[in-house]
Amino acid sequence: MKIILLSGGSGKRLWPLSNDARSKQFLKVLQNEEGGSESMIQRIFRQLGKSCPDTEIILATSEVQSDSIRRQLGNEVEKVLEPSRRNTYPAILLSGAYLLDCKQAPDDEIIIVLPVDTYVEQDYFDKFRDMERALTEFGAEICLMGIHPTYPSEKYGYITVSVPDGESCGRVVSCVEKPDLAQARRLMQDGALWNGGIFMFRASFVKALIAKELGTVSYEAVYRRYHELPYISFDYEVIERHPSMACVIYDGEWNDLGTWNTLTEQMKEPDGGFVIRDDGCNNTHVINELEIPIVAMGLQDTVVVASADGILVSDKHASSFLLPCVEQIDNRPMYEKRQWGEYKVLDVQQCKVDAGNSLTKSMYIEAGRSVSYQLHHFRDEVWTIVDGRGIFLLDGEARRVGRGDVLFIPRECKHAIWSLTGLSFIEVQIGSDLVEEDIERLDWDWSEILRQQGETDNDGAK
Amino acid sequence: MKIILLSGGSGKRLWPLSNDARSKQFLKVLQNEEGGSESMIQRIFRQLGKSCPDTEIILATSEVQSDSIRRQLGNEVEKVLEPSRRNTYPAILLSGAYLLDCKQAPDDEIIIVLPVDTYVEQDYFDKFRDMERALTEFGAEICLMGIHPTYPSEKYGYITVSVPDGESCGRVVSCVEKPDLAQARRLMQDGALWNGGIFMFRASFVKALIAKELGTVSYEAVYRRYHELPYISFDYEVIERHPSMACVIYDGEWNDLGTWNTLTEQMKEPDGGFVIRDDGCNNTHVINELEIPIVAMGLQDTVVVASADGILVSDKHASSFLLPCVEQIDNRPMYEKRQWGEYKVLDVQQCKVDAGNSLTKSMYIEAGRSVSYQLHHFRDEVWTIVDGRGIFLLDGEARRVGRGDVLFIPRECKHAIWSLTGLSFIEVQIGSDLVEEDIERLDWDWSEILRQQGETDNDGAK
Repeated sequence: MKIILLSGGSGKRLWPLSNDARSKQFLKVLQNEEGGSESMIQRIFRQLGKSCPDTEIILATSEVQSDSIRRQLGNEVEKVLEPSRRNTYPAILLSGAYLLDCKQAPDDEIIIVLPVDTYVEQDYFDKFRDMERALTEFGAEICLMGIHPTYPSEKYGYITVSVPDGESCGRVVSCVEKPDLAQARRLMQDGALWNGGIFMFRASFVKALIAKELGTVSYEAVYRRYHELPYISFDYEVIERHPSMACVIYDGEWNDLGTWNTLTEQMKEPDGGFVIRDDGCNNTHVINELEIPIVAMGLQDTVVVASADGILVSDKHASSFLLPCVEQIDNRPMYEKRQWGEYKVLDVQQCKVDAGNSLTKSMYIEAGRSVSYQLHHFRDEVWTIVDGRGIFLLDGEARRVGRGDVLFIPRECKHAIWSLTGLSFIEVQIGSDLVEEDIERLDWDWSEILRQQGETDNDGAK
Repeated sequence: MKIILLSGGSGKRLWPLSNDARSKQFLKVLQNEEGGSESMIQRIFRQLGKSCPDTEIILATSEVQSDSIRRQLGNEVEKVLEPSRRNTYPAILLSGAYLLDCKQAPDDEIIIVLPVDTYVEQDYFDKFRDMERALTEFGAEICLMGIHPTYPSEKYGYITVSVPDGESCGRVVSCVEKPDLAQARRLMQDGALWNGGIFMFRASFVKALIAKELGTVSYEAVYRRYHELPYISFDYEVIERHPSMACVIYDGEWNDLGTWNTLTEQMKEPDGGFVIRDDGCNNTHVINELEIPIVAMGLQDTVVVASADGILVSDKHASSFLLPCVEQIDNRPMYEKRQWGEYKVLDVQQCKVDAGNSLTKSMYIEAGRSVSYQLHHFRDEVWTIVDGRGIFLLDGEARRVGRGDVLFIPRECKHAIWSLTGLSFIEVQIGSDLVEEDIERLDWDWSEILRQQGETDNDGAK
């Protein structure tokens, strides 16, 4: 058996903590076994390690998540990086091609595709064996996992299954993806199940899909021609109309953690960050990533979340319908974790007297790491070092810098900085078009400079 | 008649918009007659101008409010500045001494003391004549204004008045200041009135009080010996035990605007700033002074207020009990308006590698104004000009600066900047003790430099 874990869609359903650069699966808000905190992706990796210790796991993800994955799961995780964001159908085909072509998976290998954002107990993973049996027993091409619905949700797919008495699996009669509310009510009354988002099939099945789309199962070809694959979910493209499917029913705890309403139910602590609440708050969660305090008083069934991107104050039930509100906001990300450290946007100004703009950031670079050697076409930068020591590189000239030094970087000048101790600086950008995209990255090998300066190189040097 | 308007207590009852440096009476959240917005102090000045156009008004305030007063009411307002913050009893004595000594008010002059934070309709001011009549009619030394209570509040004083049938004024039988809830209920049942915070008396009355406290009514002496006056409110010191008082009943609209609960009732708009709300919010106000968005969903009877100082999310009724929550916060003010412009604290960091701290501010100086010539003992500063032009002065040497210039100011160096066009810069402070108090202000006359630079001087030059 091989596992494809879909670490997909950044999205904004958990705004303001999730955005295009930060995905919900990396938020460390769940409780781990030792009482500490862990993220969704850490939780599912821990659970899979326990239930399927010898099974190979492929993480279907994108470059933008690489830093977060390294940070939370280490360097050992096997990743398939989508060349561009599309949807689950292309993502599963790419990972399938990887298993077939690069890992030489035989045609009868069982492949199981899992979402990364499901909150479940350990017995969920024991169902994988039942699914494998059902696939054979019913002579089906796909096996799904069905969940007893608890309310008529419009967000899920519904599966109608013919289940023999006393059994917990059966043949799928029909599937409906994201029905409207009236239809969801009817389906629920008729005993339909939620589709838990798990797909199990044999390697030969995905092989046929890839061959149908592109005429080849070469991983290199699928990767190169990824943009030709239809932008569609696996549910719509395959599940909703497939004639040969089985389903295993799971009746343990299941929660998709896709909204603040569901996520807060599983959160370790009601408050995070600088929060003051009175005794009158009930069933209320307050998460504060800002440095200023949040005072919460007399709130019922409310979720308050503040980050550098914005502030959400919502009735918990209403928070499920966040997307249309958040889609009105097109601000740039104000906080990002990167491979080298992190930055926060402190201030953005449009000039009133002169032409142009300014943008101020707080930057932190971890010890032994550096920002890439780079230049900007549309801005000058002023860096004021406020903590730590490093080596600053400007057009090939290196010098040691530290707290109190002010570095002026005119546009078109190549620059980088190496952090020796952990390094904080304030960056003021002055220019016309102050976007992350105004960057040209150049190659640079720090090892020579580090040697000259008597500093040891490590894995951050490149 | 002379009016003393008490523009007092900054306080935190409207946190995070009011703090030690910003008082609630200057928040421009009310609706003026033209449909624009106005502050409490602007409203009451407008109303007084209409009802008592020829009456002298003295504003009892403190130096810290001077800039806001100039900004909102102009330079013409007559102010009595308390040398230190004490309470209403000393403040009224100081203003009384000013009227007696500097304005030569005769002994029988009527003096009326008003709070600045009462929200009333115009007919409230017509009651002043009734109060003057009642003072004479009942041979009383003080006349109060009584308000019919709408709920048993613990925040107000209660007056029991013997009112003849068909009359709207009478003799005060007793006064109780801030009773507990049970007592407030009893008082309300017995027909007691709220004390509306207005005191009317003759000049001779306050003259006797001042003489009793300090043995002199010289304004200079009262000002100099202000710290000797007891730190107590006029209600506790005088009203609660005075034997000879009358009271006029006012039954129009009256609201003390002292809490978010009461203030939001009078607010012009439910939202202020960058706010996105869904259709499910009812009786909910959202005020956002930050640049990041607030998304409000499904909220009932809620007030959300965000400023650089913090974020309040509260049930409206619960917001009346804000003080104990906010008193746990001892952060410095993060945003202040000053005579020369305004600043916002963007970032505060404690060093992890080196000793010390850093603090980053965004500064804006209005055209034709300057920050005072100053030096700091415990910090260096780096100013990066992001918009506008000015004249920078460092240890007596002046030079023109503009967008893109970086100014390094070592500790102990005297410095100032003159804004020619409106000037924005980012200030990074690096030092050990980064507080507003680390400042030594020096005299400087800009006129010579401005003349040399061919710039015209104006009222900002000093």
